[in-house]
Amino acid sequence: MDEFDFINKLKSSCHFHQDVKVGIGDDAAVYKTSEHTHQVVCVDTMVEGVHFLKHVSTPEEIGYKALAVNISDIAAMGAIPLYYLVSIAIPSSWKEQELLNLYQGMKELANEYEMDLLGGDTVSTADKLVVTVTVIGEVNANVQTLRSNARDGDIVFVTGNVGDSSAGLALLLEHVTLNNKSHKEYLIQRHKRPTPRVKEGQFIAKLERASLNDISDGLASELNEISEASQLGITINEADLPISEALLELGTSHELNKWVLFGGEDFELVGTTSQESWEKLRNECEDQSISVTKIGTVTSDHSSVRMVTKDHNTITLEKSGYNHFKR
Amino acid sequence: MDEFDFINKLKSSCHFHQDVKVGIGDDAAVYKTSEHTHQVVCVDTMVEGVHFLKHVSTPEEIGYKALAVNISDIAAMGAIPLYYLVSIAIPSSWKEQELLNLYQGMKELANEYEMDLLGGDTVSTADKLVVTVTVIGEVNANVQTLRSNARDGDIVFVTGNVGDSSAGLALLLEHVTLNNKSHKEYLIQRHKRPTPRVKEGQFIAKLERASLNDISDGLASELNEISEASQLGITINEADLPISEALLELGTSHELNKWVLFGGEDFELVGTTSQESWEKLRNECEDQSISVTKIGTVTSDHSSVRMVTKDHNTITLEKSGYNHFKR
Repeated sequence: MDEFDFINKLKSSCHFHQDVKVGIGDDAAVYKTSEHTHQVVCVDTMVEGVHFLKHVSTPEEIGYKALAVNISDIAAMGAIPLYYLVSIAIPSSWKEQELLNLYQGMKELANEYEMDLLGGDTVSTADKLVVTVTVIGEVNANVQTLRSNARDGDIVFVTGNVGDSSAGLALLLEHVTLNNKSHKEYLIQRHKRPTPRVKEGQFIAKLERASLNDISDGLASELNEISEASQLGITINEADLPISEALLELGTSHELNKWVLFGGEDFELVGTTSQESWEKLRNECEDQSISVTKIGTVTSDHSSVRMVTKDHNTITLEKSGYNHFKR
Repeated sequence: MDEFDFINKLKSSCHFHQDVKVGIGDDAAVYKTSEHTHQVVCVDTMVEGVHFLKHVSTPEEIGYKALAVNISDIAAMGAIPLYYLVSIAIPSSWKEQELLNLYQGMKELANEYEMDLLGGDTVSTADKLVVTVTVIGEVNANVQTLRSNARDGDIVFVTGNVGDSSAGLALLLEHVTLNNKSHKEYLIQRHKRPTPRVKEGQFIAKLERASLNDISDGLASELNEISEASQLGITINEADLPISEALLELGTSHELNKWVLFGGEDFELVGTTSQESWEKLRNECEDQSISVTKIGTVTSDHSSVRMVTKDHNTITLEKSGYNHFKR
């Protein structure tokens, strides 16, 4: 079974409440609470042994990331995160101090965004720790940075660098090695402590129209979601992909492609907007020293996601990033 | 470690957002979104092998209950449930059809309350299924049915009958037996398919002032929470406790006490209100054929929860119901 197919089976064709503006199928749900403001809500679960390993990440790092992945979903809706709730299933292998440190890791990040912990649940479990974080945010009623917003001729852009996080994981698991200590540390931190792109999401939300996704399952997967939701094709250029110096040092070209296109957990934002809006976004980001890169275009010529490689071949990028659900 | 102590350590003395009206420590959190309306949000996790057993409950029943326990928290805030999100960690022992049935069980209950599924997460896990449900509701800005609202002289009341759910579990696990088939079925259904008391919560919310809790951890535990939060004593009368005919048939007096006082998962509402409001509530409930029973009084004479037994002894009821966190 595939996660995406499964989610499609749960979708309702209609809602009881007309206030629902975005239901299942985007980064977060959106519902109306007043004329000017919509609430944005999302939830993500991390499982010990699947999403994190206790011997490679500290409890603080695990807590930080559990919250970060949700803030990233809020950012991809052009929203501001406000509140979070934490539900945690705890096995006896975790000590009270470790649990407090996990919550401390969340609090550290929450403080950066002035978010309040509103509640949650604590239960026991026999086996592995499972932490579920719900984040609630707010967005202007006229903002919708949906996956389905792409239009023919749009510019495809991405914030920051891609591929760092999965390379960092490969380093942590000692699948690869890197002598340059600062580069190694950079990549590992990118995996352990991703920065949700809230500020970037706010810039993009001010554009006239934009499609937007956060990169949780890999660049190829997120681009496919935009392509499918907008029913348009996307073509990106390998030569334009923003890759960090550290990653370039580490990777052979085969590994690089795997990390950059299918690695996942970068928590950068990838989206599309009109040529005119792109110019505006690029200038604004330049003024603020924010990294945003044009990597391709949207087209009605085909309906898939394609990449023009450095040696000028065109390949199709399948939706085959991280898929925790596949088995 | 105790769940209650742990939660206390997570509480913040202040919030970034003044819109937070109720934070950690009540049935659900409340925050302001407009002058007239507050949002109410809660989250609960159920773990296979801890909160449910696959060989005694169907996937539909497990789904139904996972949502019901959250709606109950919303009801205890005097609020109306509107939306839910579901995050689920799935082991390979669960088939796709079982998972769809679990969601169907939730949907069946959600339809009764006209609630929309807004989203969630699906991840894999090695061991036991873990399902986390987030419910969002709405409450009038002037309603606060907090645990800390009890006042000296208040009447203590409870909706429905208490003790049925844990007796139903004892029957399911074959710890006890009952020949009367309809009584047996009644008790089992009370465990598997508890009815969240949303309508009752709405009646109570209309009172001038009320303290309120839903019975998830047992009557004794919930009364202790009201007593502690309000810094007042509570005295209940054993003879007044509403006990179903089925439970009376099943139990010896020792077992009865265990189920009724410490059993948990009844998801009835227990609260306190002034003598005058109590009369009003009783009359309104009578008109609607809703069961609500006076079981005791609030007092400033002592600070504990006590019960006057049928043989006129007074015993102290400790906060020792279900506590999944204790180990």
